[in-house]
Amino acid sequence: MNIGIFGTGMVGQVLAPKLVELGHDVMLGTRNPAETLARNEKDNYGNPPFSEWHQNNPKVKVGTFAEAAAHGELLMNGTSGHGSLPALRAAGERNLNGKILIDIANPLDLSQGFPPSLYVGNTDSLGEQIQREFPALNVVKALNTVNAFVMVNPAILGNGDHDIFVSGNDAQAKQTVIAFLKSQFGWKDVIDFGDITYARATEGYLALWIRMYAQFQTPMVTIKVVK
Amino acid sequence: MNIGIFGTGMVGQVLAPKLVELGHDVMLGTRNPAETLARNEKDNYGNPPFSEWHQNNPKVKVGTFAEAAAHGELLMNGTSGHGSLPALRAAGERNLNGKILIDIANPLDLSQGFPPSLYVGNTDSLGEQIQREFPALNVVKALNTVNAFVMVNPAILGNGDHDIFVSGNDAQAKQTVIAFLKSQFGWKDVIDFGDITYARATEGYLALWIRMYAQFQTPMVTIKVVK
Repeated sequence: MNIGIFGTGMVGQVLAPKLVELGHDVMLGTRNPAETLARNEKDNYGNPPFSEWHQNNPKVKVGTFAEAAAHGELLMNGTSGHGSLPALRAAGERNLNGKILIDIANPLDLSQGFPPSLYVGNTDSLGEQIQREFPALNVVKALNTVNAFVMVNPAILGNGDHDIFVSGNDAQAKQTVIAFLKSQFGWKDVIDFGDITYARATEGYLALWIRMYAQFQTPMVTIKVVK
Repeated sequence: MNIGIFGTGMVGQVLAPKLVELGHDVMLGTRNPAETLARNEKDNYGNPPFSEWHQNNPKVKVGTFAEAAAHGELLMNGTSGHGSLPALRAAGERNLNGKILIDIANPLDLSQGFPPSLYVGNTDSLGEQIQREFPALNVVKALNTVNAFVMVNPAILGNGDHDIFVSGNDAQAKQTVIAFLKSQFGWKDVIDFGDITYARATEGYLALWIRMYAQFQTPMVTIKVVK
């Protein structure tokens, strides 16, 4: 399948090679591809520059947000929270409408350092902001509760015995995403978790996730629902 | 042990009999005991009036917030979020200072119906508000992530294989609470979860818990940490 992923950070760098390995044709979208590919310095977290990553992953295409959106039959939002709406605006409604967007972004405010707070939440969410601005895009909030390495390989934590939540307004789009997560990444427990307002719940959960990260000194942590 | 519990709602009505059964001397604190005991109508949720509950649980003492605070060597806050600071002000610093308060309350805003939002969160928490106003009280946020019936009997969900979080500024107070939860209620997995700012995480988690309640149609749901 042709898949477009917005963002060239950690989420895109982990998702794209996995999807290529699974046989998909993947394009990462970024604001300025030439600039992104020219970067040869480590990022703020000490990760290698994108150019080095891309040399190791030559099958992953890189284009503008609009090109990645046009490329994808299925779209994924792997930008930062603040970067999400600008990326989608640059992608353009014509390239988005009628498609499914798996929205993985979280509205983290890192301006005061770690731990971040959420710049939207409680009575609204980033998922809802995106859905409101792009009503003909099928926004499905998913995967935002786990580290990128867990997204594509849930079995690395607790033998895969934990849960992921999928929220969105379109029942068929949610079912497509649920089937995709199970068949491609091996998720066993995927919860059909209400309409897009439920993104308030899974984005709000980041308040707990971030503190677990801090307390346990690892982002490799998630939750299993017990009922 | 003498235990004082603020609030005569569901949390107090479940905690108190269990603690009495365990041999403790328990007093529930309320604004106006005579008025609370005189109630003979069901509450907004259809629960029996307090007077009926008290007839069935005569060993549980009922007093003012100040009397319950004076009575307790250990204190528990089982009021609503909005009721917490007024209850503690009525209890009085003299009856609170130097003691441990297990703060179970959540800052739920039910003014717009269900699902509630949180009236404080993200960069602050109810637990911190209480600790700031009563600096000589050892506030330990705990049990607020589960239904009252799970608080006193964790084994009723998933054979007890799930987690509870304990946050507070005083390490010794936290250890006392952790030991209490294990020995009295049978909690197996109690996480020492940082200082009182971590109450932002466990109160913020209510955003997820409330939606799980809505989606699964039961408050008998919690989480197990997987790492």
